[in-house]
Amino acid sequence: MSLLDDTVARIAPVDFDAAAAAQLALDAKTKPRGSLGRLEEVAARIAAIRRTPQPGRLEAAIIVAAADHGVAAEGVSAYPAEVTRQMLANFEAEGAAVSVLARVAGARVHVVDVGVGRPTGNIASGAAMTRDDARRLAEQGIACAQELSGEGVGIVALGEMGIGNSTVAAALASALLGVDAERVCGRGTGIDDEGLQRKIRVVRAALAANHVDRGDTLGVLAALGGSELAFLCGVALGAAAEQLAVVLDGFISSVAALAAARHAPPAAQVMIAAHLSPEPGHRLVLDALELEPLLDLRLRLGEGSGAVLSLPLLDAALAVLDEMATFDAAGVTDAGR
Amino acid sequence: MSLLDDTVARIAPVDFDAAAAAQLALDAKTKPRGSLGRLEEVAARIAAIRRTPQPGRLEAAIIVAAADHGVAAEGVSAYPAEVTRQMLANFEAEGAAVSVLARVAGARVHVVDVGVGRPTGNIASGAAMTRDDARRLAEQGIACAQELSGEGVGIVALGEMGIGNSTVAAALASALLGVDAERVCGRGTGIDDEGLQRKIRVVRAALAANHVDRGDTLGVLAALGGSELAFLCGVALGAAAEQLAVVLDGFISSVAALAAARHAPPAAQVMIAAHLSPEPGHRLVLDALELEPLLDLRLRLGEGSGAVLSLPLLDAALAVLDEMATFDAAGVTDAGR
Repeated sequence: MSLLDDTVARIAPVDFDAAAAAQLALDAKTKPRGSLGRLEEVAARIAAIRRTPQPGRLEAAIIVAAADHGVAAEGVSAYPAEVTRQMLANFEAEGAAVSVLARVAGARVHVVDVGVGRPTGNIASGAAMTRDDARRLAEQGIACAQELSGEGVGIVALGEMGIGNSTVAAALASALLGVDAERVCGRGTGIDDEGLQRKIRVVRAALAANHVDRGDTLGVLAALGGSELAFLCGVALGAAAEQLAVVLDGFISSVAALAAARHAPPAAQVMIAAHLSPEPGHRLVLDALELEPLLDLRLRLGEGSGAVLSLPLLDAALAVLDEMATFDAAGVTDAGR
Repeated sequence: MSLLDDTVARIAPVDFDAAAAAQLALDAKTKPRGSLGRLEEVAARIAAIRRTPQPGRLEAAIIVAAADHGVAAEGVSAYPAEVTRQMLANFEAEGAAVSVLARVAGARVHVVDVGVGRPTGNIASGAAMTRDDARRLAEQGIACAQELSGEGVGIVALGEMGIGNSTVAAALASALLGVDAERVCGRGTGIDDEGLQRKIRVVRAALAANHVDRGDTLGVLAALGGSELAFLCGVALGAAAEQLAVVLDGFISSVAALAAARHAPPAAQVMIAAHLSPEPGHRLVLDALELEPLLDLRLRLGEGSGAVLSLPLLDAALAVLDEMATFDAAGVTDAGR
């Protein structure tokens, strides 16, 4: 059995009994029932993912997968392709947004080069990569999740960097959701009206040039790419098998997560949507995953920046579950009893 | 000149030039222009409040003002009045939600008893307190803000605890905004339909029993209370004079902030709305203050809990401004130049 198939076989539904027990514990805390709103939902969901009513506070890591894309040659990005490599150096020097935000959030950044300077095929005219490539990248992602789990990480945030990858993500979303390019193409890092029309034409061309069966996730990833999306799809699958919470960032990382959920449906249950991006396809992808984003701050940077910004909310939710006093212990009258 | 009048005289408009300079600095960072969305707005606004393009990262304190209310006798809360005192002990033991959340956020909690066990008059039939009482409480709040500023605090979050105080806040909002009780009364910590109807009747009775001139903020606070709202109004005024950012929590603290902004309009410019509460009056109050909340997590606890949850976003915004690399320094091609 391959690592991919073995991992998928290990992905089980999350433990809803643990969530119910966590909610009972939250109800005994010195606050009106449910008054911490979505924070309580998050705590109960993480209890379900970790299969314990007392998950405690968890270490978080951000995985930033970086790669180049043949489709960048079509002029679909506001930035030249060399920026992917330049940003890799910026991550290394800890000067990028995700570096700063992760430092503030007390989370580790794990940058993985899965194809910088080795662009995939141009999807406007053919396949991004072979099926074997897609499998190998997904299995690298699985191995990465396993390694982090082994090091004690309990929460994995998905980040990406790759000039042209919002076009790739739009093509994937168009294929996986069965919707036209117009509904999933946005301005990415900041293209103008003409650039947006070009991007829509390129995505339509990619779907015409690549005949994909949307029930075959590996086939879709091989046809449309990109390397970092195949890798992050593997991270999500590996994390689900390891009972790690997976925090989605914006449109691109969410499309990788959607591919994972299509390949192994229970994987969707370990996912938490950090924020809603202004990219028009993001809401469609989150709806397909049945996820409601925590934040709406008009973030459109990627790199995992929005995912990292949500980590203090997850930490707060877990701290409430772990550390708040109960009505009984604090001697506070419980009107809701 | 009294401390209150002297403080109001010291409140100047924030420095919009500093905000513009901070935005220029953000535009030079290695990210597409504006791609950190509301985080960039927050950084620029804090620059304006602190009157420098480089405010750096700031120490934050949460002030939790606690008091009792004569109107609690009308049965407007799901909890008995003794809970205010019990919660004071819970804050002391650091077991309350705000205690846990502040620990996670690395912020100080400053609990101030401004009337626990010494309830104000029942506003359903008369004035909450005298005009002198309201002024004394506001001046205590000013002194508290001055003290924190002297200790190096740059951000003050407003929190409150007081059984019955969402009724008091509704009466204040009704008076200050000139809207009927129905539009500003909500379920508070969890009253049922009958309790909500009773609360609306009590607020209408309070406005009938107390003839207030909404242009006279001290008069409105004296008539309708409560002690913690008059105190927090003073905190907001003192913070504005000291060039501290003021983070609003839910409906109740926002009403105190509205009173401050009515008394000294430029004070509104130092305010940041942490979250949107499900209380129906909260949006009305934030609209009057021209503030857009950062979070929408269905929080309805008070204590400053929502304000504290927003602090990591403020810290992240300031860290981005302070610590992110520029395109030039990182050698990244700037397409937006």
